[in-house]
Amino acid sequence: MRVIFNEEMRQVADDMEQMAAAVSAAITGAGKALLGPDLDAAQAVIEGDQVIDQLESSVIDQCVQLLAKQSPVATDLRIVVSTLRLAATFERMGDLARHIAEAVRRSYPDPPLPPEAHELFQDMQDFLDQMASRLVTMMADRDTKVAECIIVDDDKLDKLHQQTFDLALSDKWEGSKQQMIDLVLLARFMERLGDHGVSAARRVVYIVSGFDPSKDPKDLEDID
Amino acid sequence: MRVIFNEEMRQVADDMEQMAAAVSAAITGAGKALLGPDLDAAQAVIEGDQVIDQLESSVIDQCVQLLAKQSPVATDLRIVVSTLRLAATFERMGDLARHIAEAVRRSYPDPPLPPEAHELFQDMQDFLDQMASRLVTMMADRDTKVAECIIVDDDKLDKLHQQTFDLALSDKWEGSKQQMIDLVLLARFMERLGDHGVSAARRVVYIVSGFDPSKDPKDLEDID
Repeated sequence: MRVIFNEEMRQVADDMEQMAAAVSAAITGAGKALLGPDLDAAQAVIEGDQVIDQLESSVIDQCVQLLAKQSPVATDLRIVVSTLRLAATFERMGDLARHIAEAVRRSYPDPPLPPEAHELFQDMQDFLDQMASRLVTMMADRDTKVAECIIVDDDKLDKLHQQTFDLALSDKWEGSKQQMIDLVLLARFMERLGDHGVSAARRVVYIVSGFDPSKDPKDLEDID
Repeated sequence: MRVIFNEEMRQVADDMEQMAAAVSAAITGAGKALLGPDLDAAQAVIEGDQVIDQLESSVIDQCVQLLAKQSPVATDLRIVVSTLRLAATFERMGDLARHIAEAVRRSYPDPPLPPEAHELFQDMQDFLDQMASRLVTMMADRDTKVAECIIVDDDKLDKLHQQTFDLALSDKWEGSKQQMIDLVLLARFMERLGDHGVSAARRVVYIVSGFDPSKDPKDLEDID
């Protein structure tokens, strides 16, 4: 039974790696769309979200079948349940990248943000690009060290997120009201991508080590 | 085995009813906090979120134990997996209500929104209060008719959400930049509460009937 579990779980793991790669591409694509603005990049992210949704459905179906046929217990059960939740997290990250791309498409050919916001959003995007790349490595290698880097670094993104409000409230801001609305929404989507990246990293730590870092009281805030 | 499953699942169902009631209280409390502004109501929502988080942990633990000890299949398995996802949805609704309460606390004693936004946010809140009440009935009675009302009505909230942007862009708007930021965030939190309510309703339909309304292609957008 154990052999079958590992074989079938390997298939699920392959799909999860594909999901991580698709989410990573969506994040970098959304950034390219936003900072261009680049309509083709936006369109690719919007269309690519369906692939992420389909991968989630496939992972759920496989996990439910695995639970039904093999009745895993202990570590195996923990892996299956955590994988279900990890797939939901990746699916949500795809939605958020799509929201960014949709905002770009709405305002195109104008950029959704005024020039004075470009540098700050580039910094946020640089952060997310690094996180996206780490997510792929983490999933491919089940690397908890990389997962821990994602968890530890998140407050950098939170600080950048706060700076978007500071910019909008400052005299430097010359954007329109619509750009103010877009700034708040886009910054929120990017910050949520970071939160979900942390959530994904925690689930991988839990899958690999059995230790659940989300049970650390100081880290319980607003992850999912 | 089936008897034990039903007994243990009854305990989980009780916790889920408690979760629905706590989420409902958080939603109405957040509205009271916002439209007062009422600091005590805000504080109660912020503190109450921990109870929702604990209920989610308890539901997850019970479901995992149930999977390990009883290896449910078919309908029983579907109920357990859907319950796990429903608990995650409720937990996220608690977070969103807390975010609204935190925004109220930040700006108190000033209201976070200018007077011209009051009526529109009251309309959104009336919608959410009705949804909150329906969530409780739906969970207590496993009532798919009520669940379907939640699903069908959601576009009303989406229209109100769009109107918040229209208001901010119109000449009627006299709020500050900070109030503009808060309007965008608060409206987003409320719209997300509606989305998650729909997600919860769909899961209950699935649990009760075995038919998954989220597989309807036209409804696939942005639910979780």
